[in-house]
Formats: sequence, structure tokens, C-alpha cells
Amino acid sequence: MQLGMVGLGRMGNYMVQRLMRGGHECVVYDARPESVAELAGLGATGSASLEEFVSKLTHPRAIWLMLPAAIVDKVLASLVPLLQNGDIVIDGGNSYYHDDIRRGAELISKGIHYVDVGTSGGVFGLERGYCLMIGGEKGTVQHLSPIFAALAPGAGTTEASPNRTAEAVAASTAEQGYLHCGPHGAGHFVKMVHNGIEYGLMAAYAEGLNILKHANIGAASHVADAETAPLAHPEHFQYDFNLQDVSEVWRRGSVITSWLLDLTADALHADPALSKYAGRVSDSGEGRWTIMAAIDESVPTPVLSAALYGRFSSRDNDEFANKVLSAMRAGFGGHVEKPAPKS
Amino acid sequence: MQLGMVGLGRMGNYMVQRLMRGGHECVVYDARPESVAELAGLGATGSASLEEFVSKLTHPRAIWLMLPAAIVDKVLASLVPLLQNGDIVIDGGNSYYHDDIRRGAELISKGIHYVDVGTSGGVFGLERGYCLMIGGEKGTVQHLSPIFAALAPGAGTTEASPNRTAEAVAASTAEQGYLHCGPHGAGHFVKMVHNGIEYGLMAAYAEGLNILKHANIGAASHVADAETAPLAHPEHFQYDFNLQDVSEVWRRGSVITSWLLDLTADALHADPALSKYAGRVSDSGEGRWTIMAAIDESVPTPVLSAALYGRFSSRDNDEFANKVLSAMRAGFGGHVEKPAPKS
Amino acid sequence: MQLGMVGLGRMGNYMVQRLMRGGHECVVYDARPESVAELAGLGATGSASLEEFVSKLTHPRAIWLMLPAAIVDKVLASLVPLLQNGDIVIDGGNSYYHDDIRRGAELISKGIHYVDVGTSGGVFGLERGYCLMIGGEKGTVQHLSPIFAALAPGAGTTEASPNRTAEAVAASTAEQGYLHCGPHGAGHFVKMVHNGIEYGLMAAYAEGLNILKHANIGAASHVADAETAPLAHPEHFQYDFNLQDVSEVWRRGSVITSWLLDLTADALHADPALSKYAGRVSDSGEGRWTIMAAIDESVPTPVLSAALYGRFSSRDNDEFANKVLSAMRAGFGGHVEKPAPKS
Amino acid sequence: MQLGMVGLGRMGNYMVQRLMRGGHECVVYDARPESVAELAGLGATGSASLEEFVSKLTHPRAIWLMLPAAIVDKVLASLVPLLQNGDIVIDGGNSYYHDDIRRGAELISKGIHYVDVGTSGGVFGLERGYCLMIGGEKGTVQHLSPIFAALAPGAGTTEASPNRTAEAVAASTAEQGYLHCGPHGAGHFVKMVHNGIEYGLMAAYAEGLNILKHANIGAASHVADAETAPLAHPEHFQYDFNLQDVSEVWRRGSVITSWLLDLTADALHADPALSKYAGRVSDSGEGRWTIMAAIDESVPTPVLSAALYGRFSSRDNDEFANKVLSAMRAGFGGHVEKPAPKS
Repeated sequence: MQLGMVGLGRMGNYMVQRLMRGGHECVVYDARPESVAELAGLGATGSASLEEFVSKLTHPRAIWLMLPAAIVDKVLASLVPLLQNGDIVIDGGNSYYHDDIRRGAELISKGIHYVDVGTSGGVFGLERGYCLMIGGEKGTVQHLSPIFAALAPGAGTTEASPNRTAEAVAASTAEQGYLHCGPHGAGHFVKMVHNGIEYGLMAAYAEGLNILKHANIGAASHVADAETAPLAHPEHFQYDFNLQDVSEVWRRGSVITSWLLDLTADALHADPALSKYAGRVSDSGEGRWTIMAAIDESVPTPVLSAALYGRFSSRDNDEFANKVLSAMRAGFGGHVEKPAPKS
Repeated sequence: MQLGMVGLGRMGNYMVQRLMRGGHECVVYDARPESVAELAGLGATGSASLEEFVSKLTHPRAIWLMLPAAIVDKVLASLVPLLQNGDIVIDGGNSYYHDDIRRGAELISKGIHYVDVGTSGGVFGLERGYCLMIGGEKGTVQHLSPIFAALAPGAGTTEASPNRTAEAVAASTAEQGYLHCGPHGAGHFVKMVHNGIEYGLMAAYAEGLNILKHANIGAASHVADAETAPLAHPEHFQYDFNLQDVSEVWRRGSVITSWLLDLTADALHADPALSKYAGRVSDSGEGRWTIMAAIDESVPTPVLSAALYGRFSSRDNDEFANKVLSAMRAGFGGHVEKPAPKS
Repeated sequence: MQLGMVGLGRMGNYMVQRLMRGGHECVVYDARPESVAELAGLGATGSASLEEFVSKLTHPRAIWLMLPAAIVDKVLASLVPLLQNGDIVIDGGNSYYHDDIRRGAELISKGIHYVDVGTSGGVFGLERGYCLMIGGEKGTVQHLSPIFAALAPGAGTTEASPNRTAEAVAASTAEQGYLHCGPHGAGHFVKMVHNGIEYGLMAAYAEGLNILKHANIGAASHVADAETAPLAHPEHFQYDFNLQDVSEVWRRGSVITSWLLDLTADALHADPALSKYAGRVSDSGEGRWTIMAAIDESVPTPVLSAALYGRFSSRDNDEFANKVLSAMRAGFGGHVEKPAPKS
Repeated sequence: MQLGMVGLGRMGNYMVQRLMRGGHECVVYDARPESVAELAGLGATGSASLEEFVSKLTHPRAIWLMLPAAIVDKVLASLVPLLQNGDIVIDGGNSYYHDDIRRGAELISKGIHYVDVGTSGGVFGLERGYCLMIGGEKGTVQHLSPIFAALAPGAGTTEASPNRTAEAVAASTAEQGYLHCGPHGAGHFVKMVHNGIEYGLMAAYAEGLNILKHANIGAASHVADAETAPLAHPEHFQYDFNLQDVSEVWRRGSVITSWLLDLTADALHADPALSKYAGRVSDSGEGRWTIMAAIDESVPTPVLSAALYGRFSSRDNDEFANKVLSAMRAGFGGHVEKPAPKS
């Protein structure tokens, strides 16, 4: 079927390519003409403006937005007046599900259908397929199922779950890699939690590897002053682990095998010191929203929160708090801060 | 080659079976004669006592202990006097690496070689192979490599890491699923951290699923009193997610695919309410030791710690602390505890 | 001066009493006539309806609401139509500062001034005075200063800070125990963070006392199975601490002296087992809002979050997450949950 | 009575001064002759060597060590051979209670009594008195009570707990500010937990003040890219709080009044930006040991751990973990690290 794509960054570009491989017709638009041109060269129908884009789509239109969350409303403000009763707008980016609920209600009052799709898979999605978590009206979601099926990995790519019943298999498309999760916002809610989990998983590996990295601390000389906790047993920390090999062996038969571990091992193979990274870790919204939803629900999320806060601290947002601590220590104990060791 | 196995619980039993499938000869012992008999029926050489067990092994003996960490020293006290110069003892259980360092030194003074092996794979290891993390002397570990190779999954079972160089592949056995990590204790150190990570991964999924589980909290009526935090936007929490489908779709193409997710999805397929579990979660040592090692190293592990503490709290070990909190609230605000809702 | 008080629960009642002791005239209203009658008996002017309440106040009226956060908007909807240009509404409860920003703007468009006051002090405030954190327009706040001064503890009650300059003392009323913190919402923002800190402080004491409570764990027999982490050194945990005495001694000269410690010690004196508490700890909003504000600011708050989550878990909101963990453990290791010990 | 003091750093020096004010006779030794000379000038009996120090003390000697934990054993190795049956050694520093248990047993076998004293009070102890938590044999502790009473604040300095019974008051010295907590190690165990709590309290204030510090984040322009979480409501973060005034007002009548808050407010009065601190926060042992003890006891301590880890991260020990996170993000999403903003 025909799909219009607005936003041709890496994600939008790859999704269009995957859709065209699946036999679908794509009309594309991006504010950067070179992004349009690239996909036009691969067979998509390009357009130089939102107006042209809309005009090239057949009613009822299906328009997929693949944009940073912060600009979706701005694009919608330009796009919606161009649409007709029965058209469908899909937000496939990382919008906050609160916005989906609001937009879904606003658009339906104008006769436009709104679908929110949480999309996971990253730059590997082109080949591996995308995991799609979908919110919206049932009929609209079903109407779009050829698109979802083409973007998703498909059933054969992962081993079936032994306990999954035939009834369950028949009742949903989960095994194809896309799922209608519920009404407006449900797709981004599930994707939000997915990303919250992702933060936690990533931090678990990162903390563990950091422990291995420092396992030779007993070999270094240890200062004996009142500002430094003594290391009682330096003989327990004399290991020089090869993190490339450790992460590689964990990929085979262990309980912690995962795609994130595959990526981690491969990054360590490329550079065991990860020296091109400074360790300033961004977060793009979903991790925070996950915690806020959990708090609204009174659900404890110590692991997911710790993962989020680690990112905040990696960007030095704990600096003033740490100064307060040093000031207190100076106050009650006369403690003077130790400078950073010479590196 | 020949291997003696002491401790024929689920893990020991399966490992013997896998070794025999690999063409190795196994002599087995367990305090429970029926466990010995079961494996004897499958082709192992049974023994009725440690003495008989040792006598049936050819010098230099290779003896694998697969025992709860708490009883390894007791068994070693009986076993070691029966051994000869050059024999090898392998601890494949979940011992604390501190004990490996101590035991390795004690045994080498008696001419006995000691190897510590962290073993991951659980009940699936028989078919899937075990991920083996090994500590000990290089020559001894190399001598045992046929055993390790038979237990491990083998190279073909997992896709190669694109960035892993041929030199790296040639230099270690990581791709076969077993790895000599370093001197005494190194195997259990790496396994300890593996399990620490495992706790973190598990908790990340569990917390995320718990958020989804409570996503319909807005549908319930909400008490308006000074003891209850108001839910400002009940319209944001009206979702009845199907956790079976969600966990299933995440298995396909998402960033959070993993073996633990496979198991979680399958558990939910078997029973979406997980009603046969009370939610009292055990921990068997490695998670704790991971945190202690991290603290000795001054490495922050907020995620792995939170995962561990969640288990402690699941067993109500936070009870007195919570009573202290309620007592303080009564003290400064006259707050009275709200009883648990009728279920 | 004259003040009208709506909401005569414990907090409102005591504040009226303290104001009358300070020579102020109070007009009071509450939906429960007996609450009105009690204060009328102490010299306040009672009223049987909001209409009567408003009619008894002199223009420009100063009306203090002391209500659960969840019902403030409802009361405002009835009250505001009765007011005149120039009247002042003060929300002294625990409202979310978002609501203050909204209400402040709404009311100013009707000629009504809005002031938000975060009030700390609890049931001891009647004697000890209340710490008041105030948001609103400068002129309005200054107009109300006699009220704030009467409610606050006053300058002499706490030792002066040695480093506080005379200029700083002259420039604010902080030393009197009340402070104009900024525009609308500033008072409840500061109170919100105050309560967030309070949660953290409380949890720190509670966790520490819980460690002392379990310091004799080495005296109990310890199970040696694969589901139980071994206690390597039971000789390190043979202490039967008297928590009454410990909390009492900490009140004298230690770094951790505080009013919360005073309350904790006294609660332990009343009952060292705290047996009248079940350990289900409520949270009333500010702790959550603190975390949400921190996340919006990208500020890490691991301690304050952990304190909040401890309360969620105390009310068993971690139950499904824990079941997921047990299900995973059953999945990969065949682990069976251990039942709770007989108590 | 007579007391010998070894270790005349800030703590040892002040304790000697306070003891002399209380009428006690002090013999002092330190490896730095100038430290000895200073106290000799104030009336203490100086000594130039451990031998001279011991010779100037009357049998049975009472010798107080006030040394960094890491060198106590070294000093004991020199000191103990000079002692006689019935002499008493007191470790008043911050030793690990495990060491107390070991030392207590070793010394008693030589006829020497060992007492461990956890000492809180910092540089203010000279005037304010020290809170003393004591472990050891009952008779020895009672013999030393004049010393403890002189060092402690004394009963009148803090208001009595209303619920503390006369029996409880009579049964212990807690109200004087010193307490015999139990056998060897009990004093340092209680002090260890005291410091663990201290870390938590400090972090709670620091996190809260950091939230206030960033409360004007909405006034700054906010980047709209896929690497930056959008700030949905900048209007909620427009506050420029005066942290000097806020911390000052909290000292009066609020629930969070404490000595640590007094110190914090005063540090902010001296310099609201705390610009002389870099925010690298040391930890000196007790915080770590607290967590390790809690883990051995299976007691959850999320708040105290988070406080400890914040210190580790303040010293950049999370760096490699953060690099792993950035490497993963690059792997699955092609995300490029954003550099630190220009300051």
C-alpha cells in the first residue's frame, strides 16, 4: 500500500527503504532536500513541500511522522490543515504518550485518525526489522497492518515461545513483531517502558564491566590517610581481565546473553579502552517518562531510576550536590578535598 | 578424557550427561545413592563413597565439584587426603572467589592443582551448552580443555562479532564459550560479576513489566485524603496491557531482546498472573559479593545494588525500617498508618 | 490582623490557636461544625457556611486554606465567586506548585491575590512555631507579614549562623522562620523539596537502625542450600543492640543529631519493637513531585528516590515485579521459591 | 584519672584538651614532636618515643589511640610489647569492627584489655563534647567511665526524651552522651552505622539543594534534538532561589532541622556558590563497611548505598561504565556523544 513519510533522518530513511523492499509505495518529505533526493534515487516519490507531499498521496492518506519528539506538534500544525476526513497520521517517533492522548482526541474531532507507534530497532532495523508497539483505534490499526508487517521482523526470525498457546498466537500479531497495544498512547507507553528497561539493562552491563575493569586495584599502592578508605585485602584485586574476551564468552550459553551484550562485545573488540567516548551519556526522554509514570502509579523502580540518574551524573549534573557534601565535611570534620590523581 | 564429578544435583547431573554425549568418561559420586544410580544407568561409572570414587579415577585425576558453596570446604577436607601429587580439583559451583584464592594456595602446597570454574547456563545447559569462566594455572587449564570444550556451547552456536579480529579469535577460546580468565579466583570473579549483572537485568525487566501491570490505575477510584498522594491525571492510566503479547513482541527486533526476556515471555505465556509465585526472591551469594567487590574497588553500582536490595525487601527484611518510618510520621505529623486494602 | 481559616483539621486548628495567642483575630470555617465550635470556644469567630465566613471578614480579606491538596480546587470554585477585588487567598496546605502557578494566574485575572505557603512543623507547630516557605507577589506577602511572624518560631529560637552577614540578616525574614521564596509556586516548590529531603533523612535513620536490629544474625543457625547466601563470618554478627540507648546517645554531640532523631528515639522509648506499626508507609505527594521536578531538571536524586520507592515497596507495590523475578529464576535455574520462615 | 593519648591530630589534640579541662592528667605521644610540644604547652605530659610514653603512665595504663584506621595495627605491634598485664588499649579512631573483634581476642590472650570507641563530634567536639559509642568488657568500660564522661557532652546539653523511662535513664549512660554498646567491636559497629546514616543524611540535603539550584532551568533555551529530552513545561522552572535564605529558614521549626543543616546553611552563608570545592567527595571507610554489614545481614540499604555511590561517582569512578553506555548507544542507534556545554 501507499505510505507517506515525513522526516528522513536515519530512522525514517531506513524505514522507507524497508517498506519499498516489501513492495510498498512511499511518498517522502523532509525539510532537507538532499534527504528527499537520496530516497527518490532509491525509488521513493519525493516532494519539495508538505503541500506537494500531501497532494501526491491518495485519500485516505496514511502519513508517518519520524521526527524528534520536540517538533511533532509544530509539523502537525502545518500538516493537519492540508488533510481530509479519514486521513491517518502516524507518529512513529519517541513522543510522550501524554501528547498522543491529547493529539488523538484533537485529531479525531477533525475527522483525522491518529496512531502512535513506538519503534525499536535502531540502525539495524533496515535488515533486522523493527519492533512496533502501536496505539490507536482498532480499525485504523488493522487498516495499516500491511505497513506494520513489512516493517516488523516477521514471525520466523525468532524461535517460538514453548508455552505460547495457539489461541494466543492466533489472537495477536505479536509473533510477527508488531502489536496493537491499546488505545491512543498505548504504543508509546509500551515503547517508553521498553526504553526504561533498556536503560536498566545497559547500566547493568556497564556497572559489571566497570567492576572487572578495576579488578586490579590491589596492584596499585594505596594511600593510608584519614581521607581514604583502606583496602583491607589487596590480594583480592590482582586481576587483569581481558574485557573483549569476557564479553565474548558471555555471549555463549550464559544467562546474560542479549543483543545489547552483542553490541557491547563488538564495541570492545573495536576498541577495548572505548577511548573515543568521553562518557557523557545522553537521555532522550523515554527513560524519564518511565520513572514519572511509575511514580504516578506508586510502582517502585529503583533500578530504572538509578540507570537514569547515572546518565545525569555522567553529564556532571551532580556537581553542586557534591560541593555541598564537601562543604559539610569541611564543616564538621575540617576535611579538605583531595585533588584528582594525576593521570 | 576422564572426569570425576562430585555433586549430582540438577547441574552436576546435566553436565555429566553432556560430557558423556561428548565422548568423555565420567566417574560420579553423590551422598544420595539414587543420584549416582541415575547417571550410572546412563553410562557413568558410579561410586558409593569418596574413597571408591577416587580409586576409580586414573592419576592425574581431574575431579569436578558441583556443590553448594557452603559445603565445598567440608567436602575438600574429606577428598584432598585421598589425592595424589598432580591431581586436579575443579570447583564448578558458585564459590566466593576469596575462597578460591585461599584454596588454590593451600592445595598447591600439597601438590594439588586447583581450578575455579564459574558455570552459567542453568537447566538449559544440557542442550544449549554452558558458558564457562575459568581461573587457575595456565597449564592445568589447558590440560582440561577437552572437558571445557565439551561442556561449552561451541563456536558455531552464536554469530561472530563483526569487529573481533582474527588475532583475538586465535588468542583465546572465548568463541567456543569457555575462557581462561586469569589466576585462582578469576573464574568465579567473572562469574560473580556475571550474576551481579544478571540481577540487574532481571530487575530491569521486572520493574518495567510492573509499570505496565499498573497502567490502569486511573480506572480505579482514588481516595482524597492527606495520607494519599493524589493522581493528577487518571486519564493517563487507563491501559489494560496484555503482558504476554508485549513481552512476546519485544522478543522481535527490539533493543531489549535477550534470553532472559525469552524466559520471561514464556513464563507469562504459562500463567499471565504468575500466581504460583509469592514474590519472595532468593539470592545465592554472587549478587552480594559483586557489590562488596565493587565497594572495595570504589566503583559505583547503583543498579546492581538496587536489584539486590529489591530481593532483600521481597523477603520483608525492610520491615523494621518501615516501622521506624511510620513511627516518625506518627511523631511529627500524627499520621496513622493506612491498613492494606482489602484484596 | 484578621485572618480567615478554612479547614480546621489538626494543622488548621493549631495554626488558629497560635495566631490567636499572637493577638490576631481569626474567623474560621470547616465543613464539620464541631471543628468550628471547638475553635469558637477558644475565641475564634465561627461560621456555618462559606458565605457566612466570607461575610464576617473585612475587605481586603485574607483567607488561609488548610486543606488536603486534592480538594483545594473544589473549595476555590465555591469560595472565589464570593470574593472581591483585592482579597487574598493563601494556600497553606501541600499543593503541587504547578497548581499554584495556574491558580495564581487565574485568580489575578479576577483581581484576587494568591499566596502559596509551604508549612512545616507538624503537630509540634503550635508550641514550636511553623517554618513557612512563601510564594507570591512581593506586596501581598509583605502585607501578610504579621500573620507569618506570628506563626513562625521567631528569631531567638535557634542559634544564629556564624557566617551569616548582617546584610543577609537585614535582607530577609529567614531568621524569623518564614521566607518569601519567589513568585507563585515558589513556596510550595521549596516545601516540596523540603519534604523530599525529609523522606531521605527518615530513610537514612530507618535503614541504619534496621542494620543494628539485625546485627545478631550470626547467632541464628544458617541454612546451607543453593537458595541461601552463606554468611561467611557469623562471629561478626553477634550483637544485641539496645536501640533505645543507641538512638538516645546519638542525640548528644554526634554528627547526626536532628529533630527527626529526637522523635525516633522517643518512639523507641515508647516501644522498642514499634509493634503497633505494620510498616506500611504512606506518601502524600511532595516526595513524588520532588523526584519529578528533579527529573525535569536532569538532576540526579538517587537517595531521595530510593526513600520514596522504599515507601512504595512497604505497601507491596513491588509484588508483581518480584513474581517476575521468581518466574525467571524458575525458568533458567529451576529455582523454587523458599516460603517465609515461620514467625 | 590518667590517660595516655597516641595520635595528636586534630581529633586527638582536642580530646586531650577537653580531658584536661575536665581535670584529667594526659600523657601524650605523636610521631611529630611539634604536636607533642603543642599539648605539652597546654599542660600535658609529652613524650618523645612510645617507650617514654609508656614509662610515664601508671599501671594499669589506659592508652587511647587516635590514629587513621590503616596504621592502628602497625602502632599496636610496637606498643603492645611495652605493656603489662592489666593495661588497657582504647582504639578511638575509625577502625573496622572486624579488626576490633580480632584485636580484642589477641590482646586478651596477652592480658591486655581492649576497648573500641566510636567517636563522633568532629572539630566541634572540644566545646560541644563527643558522642562516644563503646565496645568491650563491662568492667573495663566501667573503669574508664570518668574519661568517657569528661569527653561526652553530658546530660544537660540536650532535652530529655519525653517517653524515656526513669528505669532506662538509670540503666545506661546514654543521656550523658556515651554508651557501652556491647562486646568488642560493638562501639565501632554502632559508629560505623552512625556514619552510614550520616552519608545518607548529607546526600539528602545535597540532592535537595541541587534541585533548588537548578529550578531556573526553564529560563535557559532548550535544544530540540533527538539527543536531548525536551522540557515540556519551562514555565515550571523559573525560580531563582536564594539557597542561603532557604537553608536558614529551614533551621527554624521545620521537620528537617539538624546539626548538618546548621553546618550547611553556614557554609552557604560563607560562600553561596561553594566555589572553593571541586565536588570530589572522599569516603573514609565506615560508609562502605556499613553497606557490607547490611548485605551480610540481608538488610536493604538503598539510601545509604546511593549516598556512598554518589561519592564514588564524584571522583569519576563511573567513567568506564559511562563509556560503555555511550558505546552501546552508538552501536544500536548511531548516537554520537554531545560534548560538554561551554562554561
